[in-house]
Amino acid sequence: MKRARIEVGGHAVSAYLDRNDLVTEDGKRHPVEKAKLLPPVIPGNFYAAGLNYRAHIEWANQHHGTSYKVPSQADIGYRSNNALIGSGADIVIPRDSTGPVEFEGELVAIIGSAAKNVSEKNALGCVAGYTLGNDVSERTWQRADRTLWRAKNADTFKPMGPFILDGIDPMDQPIEVRINGRTVSSYNTRDMIFSVAHYIARMSRYVTLHPGDVIWFGCDGATVPALQPGDLVEVVNPAIGVLANRVRRDLD
Amino acid sequence: MKRARIEVGGHAVSAYLDRNDLVTEDGKRHPVEKAKLLPPVIPGNFYAAGLNYRAHIEWANQHHGTSYKVPSQADIGYRSNNALIGSGADIVIPRDSTGPVEFEGELVAIIGSAAKNVSEKNALGCVAGYTLGNDVSERTWQRADRTLWRAKNADTFKPMGPFILDGIDPMDQPIEVRINGRTVSSYNTRDMIFSVAHYIARMSRYVTLHPGDVIWFGCDGATVPALQPGDLVEVVNPAIGVLANRVRRDLD
Repeated sequence: MKRARIEVGGHAVSAYLDRNDLVTEDGKRHPVEKAKLLPPVIPGNFYAAGLNYRAHIEWANQHHGTSYKVPSQADIGYRSNNALIGSGADIVIPRDSTGPVEFEGELVAIIGSAAKNVSEKNALGCVAGYTLGNDVSERTWQRADRTLWRAKNADTFKPMGPFILDGIDPMDQPIEVRINGRTVSSYNTRDMIFSVAHYIARMSRYVTLHPGDVIWFGCDGATVPALQPGDLVEVVNPAIGVLANRVRRDLD
Repeated sequence: MKRARIEVGGHAVSAYLDRNDLVTEDGKRHPVEKAKLLPPVIPGNFYAAGLNYRAHIEWANQHHGTSYKVPSQADIGYRSNNALIGSGADIVIPRDSTGPVEFEGELVAIIGSAAKNVSEKNALGCVAGYTLGNDVSERTWQRADRTLWRAKNADTFKPMGPFILDGIDPMDQPIEVRINGRTVSSYNTRDMIFSVAHYIARMSRYVTLHPGDVIWFGCDGATVPALQPGDLVEVVNPAIGVLANRVRRDLD
């Protein structure tokens, strides 16, 4: 089943997808095309693997002059809720960004039940479902700042959605990114360095995973061309759907 | 006024301090000594300055062999909600920690009203009040891991409390840390590299600060001796109160 959160009368309301309608708890049907999709969950803890695919690490080191090593163990990183937007909302490049601002299309796991010291074998049992994320990144700030705060967590830099889908194999999902309809990235989650189950099991030795927590699993390959104002960027998975966001520059 | 969150009948309830009682919304009085204090807020975004005092940076570089530079601009970092505990709860050192596990007693600002593009002059107007935090840190993991995830965000590693107090000057607060009653750290927040107002103003250029968000402002000086099982560690400010936590090792 596909689930979402939509805005109805100024409030966030849970809904499930039935054909082309999102059905809210009161039984009302909201056509998907007209619904304002919100991030499908606001996490209590917002985890992100960052580097979890070899080809992306190699590409970043060549293209951006970084010196990332292939991680030797599954250490998780963080993002922040202020940056979350749903599918259909605008990615806003801050006024003083010199760019480049790049996409990173990712698989996202949403925790469904609390987990501490879970085994790798049982790890996927605590996952409620999966969605898509776009780990938008301002590369100049990513290189120069002491932390990733504005490089990866400026407002609107974390599109997530459109739906949460359960029952899929997280280790065999094609992820594609399109800019204005043209495919600019295409990979399969089977090439993760550390699997979804491995990350969850290792994380749960030290941190309790709570329902609603999200884990973003990184992206593979190149993340160019850079996003330009006016672009429509889409993260696509055949099962989950299309996370679509227009890019604009902050002119306030 | 001092405000807190306490557990009553398995639920988190807001309360304010009146003499030695915490008064909940239903008018009931709960003696502070008997109340189970929770973190005074669960933030939507959990910010932490990390390095914000010169003497702490110099000490860490000497003592831990790090090579931190004095930050040239106010870049904020992150912590994670899973690690939060209230005053009175135990700090639990994970089984496989080789340590040292050290305290960092800090001033914490709690955002009261949404802020975007706020000026430094008006920045403190969006603060609801202040509390204390203990940025407990496992130094071996802090040095070796790719991120700060378990070094600083293992469950129970973020004691926060006991109360939120408004109406104090965040730039003139003495902060003391005691282990088993002995003072091991003592500094004044006036020695921050970047002030509370400066951090808030700069952050708000890129991220919207939301009510309930917290910002931890780092600590000054040394953070030894390391915490040992059985220790009582207290972060103390004369106005806000005492954030007290017992240390134990996970033996599960």
